[in-house]
Amino acid sequence: MSAYKELETRFKRIAALGEAVGMLHWDMSVLMPPGGADSRTEQLTALKLTTHEMKTDSALAGLLDEAESALPDDPWQSANLREMRRIWIHANAMEASLVEAMSRACSACELIWREARLENDFVRVLPYLEEVLNLTRQVAAVKSDALICSEYEALLDQYEPAGRTARIDELFADLAGFLPEFTETALSRQAERADAVLPDGPFPTERQRILGEKLMGTLGFDFDAGRLDVSLHPFCGGVPGDIRITTRYADNDFTQSLMGVLHETGHALYEMGLPDDWRYQPVGSARGMALHESQSLLIEMQVCRSREYLEFAAPLMRDAFGGSGSKWEVDNLYRLYTRVDRNFIRVDADEVTYPAHVILRYRLERALIDDELALADLPGAWNDGMEDLLGIRPPDDRLGCLQDIHWYDGAWGYFPTYTMGAMAAAQLFATAKRELPDIPEAISRGDFSHLIGWMRKNLHAKASSASTDELMIQATGEPLETVSFKAHLQARYG
Amino acid sequence: MSAYKELETRFKRIAALGEAVGMLHWDMSVLMPPGGADSRTEQLTALKLTTHEMKTDSALAGLLDEAESALPDDPWQSANLREMRRIWIHANAMEASLVEAMSRACSACELIWREARLENDFVRVLPYLEEVLNLTRQVAAVKSDALICSEYEALLDQYEPAGRTARIDELFADLAGFLPEFTETALSRQAERADAVLPDGPFPTERQRILGEKLMGTLGFDFDAGRLDVSLHPFCGGVPGDIRITTRYADNDFTQSLMGVLHETGHALYEMGLPDDWRYQPVGSARGMALHESQSLLIEMQVCRSREYLEFAAPLMRDAFGGSGSKWEVDNLYRLYTRVDRNFIRVDADEVTYPAHVILRYRLERALIDDELALADLPGAWNDGMEDLLGIRPPDDRLGCLQDIHWYDGAWGYFPTYTMGAMAAAQLFATAKRELPDIPEAISRGDFSHLIGWMRKNLHAKASSASTDELMIQATGEPLETVSFKAHLQARYG
Repeated sequence: MSAYKELETRFKRIAALGEAVGMLHWDMSVLMPPGGADSRTEQLTALKLTTHEMKTDSALAGLLDEAESALPDDPWQSANLREMRRIWIHANAMEASLVEAMSRACSACELIWREARLENDFVRVLPYLEEVLNLTRQVAAVKSDALICSEYEALLDQYEPAGRTARIDELFADLAGFLPEFTETALSRQAERADAVLPDGPFPTERQRILGEKLMGTLGFDFDAGRLDVSLHPFCGGVPGDIRITTRYADNDFTQSLMGVLHETGHALYEMGLPDDWRYQPVGSARGMALHESQSLLIEMQVCRSREYLEFAAPLMRDAFGGSGSKWEVDNLYRLYTRVDRNFIRVDADEVTYPAHVILRYRLERALIDDELALADLPGAWNDGMEDLLGIRPPDDRLGCLQDIHWYDGAWGYFPTYTMGAMAAAQLFATAKRELPDIPEAISRGDFSHLIGWMRKNLHAKASSASTDELMIQATGEPLETVSFKAHLQARYG
Repeated sequence: MSAYKELETRFKRIAALGEAVGMLHWDMSVLMPPGGADSRTEQLTALKLTTHEMKTDSALAGLLDEAESALPDDPWQSANLREMRRIWIHANAMEASLVEAMSRACSACELIWREARLENDFVRVLPYLEEVLNLTRQVAAVKSDALICSEYEALLDQYEPAGRTARIDELFADLAGFLPEFTETALSRQAERADAVLPDGPFPTERQRILGEKLMGTLGFDFDAGRLDVSLHPFCGGVPGDIRITTRYADNDFTQSLMGVLHETGHALYEMGLPDDWRYQPVGSARGMALHESQSLLIEMQVCRSREYLEFAAPLMRDAFGGSGSKWEVDNLYRLYTRVDRNFIRVDADEVTYPAHVILRYRLERALIDDELALADLPGAWNDGMEDLLGIRPPDDRLGCLQDIHWYDGAWGYFPTYTMGAMAAAQLFATAKRELPDIPEAISRGDFSHLIGWMRKNLHAKASSASTDELMIQATGEPLETVSFKAHLQARYG
């Protein structure tokens, strides 16, 4: 067997075990009884240690060297080899002791954070977060050597391979220059219109679920190859062929849960569209979190919050809950789904103010990783940043630096991918509409086949065969840019 | 680290990965969409190959030799070492190619069997079953050398460690001598009484579930450490702390599903009572399938089909479904739950006729493994055996040798554990009642604490610290015997 083929065999095993981890995480989030926590930790630890050992197996380095010394002719095989090396670098940069210390510190910190957030007590979680940050900086240091990039970029690379801060700085600076004034415009335009009014409930969970599944189905979600369930924090898990998305329901408001379901459906469609031929190989995976988020935001923001979509969906919503009257008309539902509001909480933010939340976190985490900001000063820096970027100041840390799980759970370098995803969504959607001008009209009829077909062909099927920017150029003619996103906001809110 | 401690570390990892396999099997049986089948096969194959490699790792043999050369003082550690060696022997006896061939042959055969059973077409599945049997005999041959026992015993050992055919022959001969005449007696006694009548439905699934969970709870099933779900074939899966039992519901009859739930609860209580100190170690596992079945049959047959239990449960059943009248009285429910009937189908059999089904299968599978019966002659031999043991002749193979999945799925040597379990249940229950005479009266009040406490102490907590017979002697003063089971049948049906 050639070195390359031997690598494929090894990475297939690693991928299958990684998928087992994913399914066990899903189970833990959706239905595991509390008594299962310890056993589940043992199961996941055993799986992670085992795959870590496979990735750091001494024979693997030799196989990679050998395969790289005579690159396969097939460009997908070459790309696969490049992704294998990336995985190898990430795994081999870290001593097992650092992997374990990081895992323990994150578990401990996350546990305390849950209480500290409820109690609005940043000082309580501070020492735990210090430990997580300290270890994160060690990880960043060893990985930056191995990846030949800055320490922050080494963290970013875990979520957005080959992401570079110079690019992000440039893109974010552009948005940061545009958004404050634009937000004012959007808010004053909104003030001139009728208020958006939430239809009256209650909205029984079972009917919300049926409506959600119906709308998922029209978008192309295949229920022979996936499920919709309930969890505290909605997410998209599972594997191609068995995609598991979750939501949570509120009896008095169906609109949030429904849009959450559609958001996760966007993630699901990406996974469902990955190439069968490269299942279980690194090159067959989704490209990174920016493009993954672009697919959820394409469906949620570009498609499902559009007036065209609501023309299609409003009658289905009325049927689902027996609603009638002006609150159920497209005009009101569209105002509801495009309401702009300066909010302290990122996950509740609209698409106009969302980038400010992300830019704040990006600036802060870079300063913390680069040791330019002390962790004890985070609450003040957070509140100053909110005032600067959004013009509002959180009254407490619960509405400030305690709100997101990411840093407390060790996910540093993740935040920028949200707004990169929003930009990519606008850019991809604009191109798709240019090439297939009937898309908006088709959406108003509930026909998404051309749009999804375009995404499959131009993005999903390409998996990790090229970098994010290369894939954007192949699909849209340009690397990631801000023009399309700003134009989208202008058209909808300007 | 001592060799023994190193072994504990290695076997803990193997156990945790084995638990991951169990959880993925549960998911597959309960909620996986059909599109997940291929990925799940990859995940399970990767896990099984990985643990097989861990068990056949060349260093493991040396560690076992070293640890055995200076046995630990602690008797649990010694027992643990013995169980490790047993696992090692089973894994190392087989070439990887035989493991894989067996796995493929069983999958193929089981798939064809599902159709052949529906079509009543034994000839169609015959070549696939030939292949499974051929490979099973190869497995038996290599394992019998390694375990120093007969070929059939080598298969039996996979389910009932150290089980011996001489003992089983003796026990089963005793039952086979007793049961035919006793069945006549039971049937004629039954003919003298009023008929058992099924209460009128429908019985909504949701109410059946609530009743089932209530009765599980009174038996001591902890819903913080387990769940009840639905699957086509009821089973008890999961792990201590997270036990997953399943059932299936019929709208027109709640009695079968309910007793199924109680049966699985017996399995669950055994798992829930295993010693925390030995979690993830071989010695901490349930002893074998005979004792596991003894615990489900203890709850189902000894306890829940008793008149005392129905005095407790009948009012709860009436409440659950709003039932009233004579069909809901204890007398009728007791007649329902102790009805004797000569039936072609094992899984529908009562406890009087059940052993005949098992004895038939035990005799046939031994003859097939020992090459004393040709597979092509199985249908006739089956029907002759049924006529001989139960006095009824199946009109077709669907009601004969096509009914059970076991052989088609490669589970040879499993069947005798059902009846060994029935005997052990009677023997354990008789001893518990002798030592704690208030048990029957407590059952009629829905108080199972003394009984379950006795089982915990005398069986569950002992896990695999000794052999089945040794555990029976410790708990009851005698190895497995038929006297208690016959006495139980006499008291209830004679």
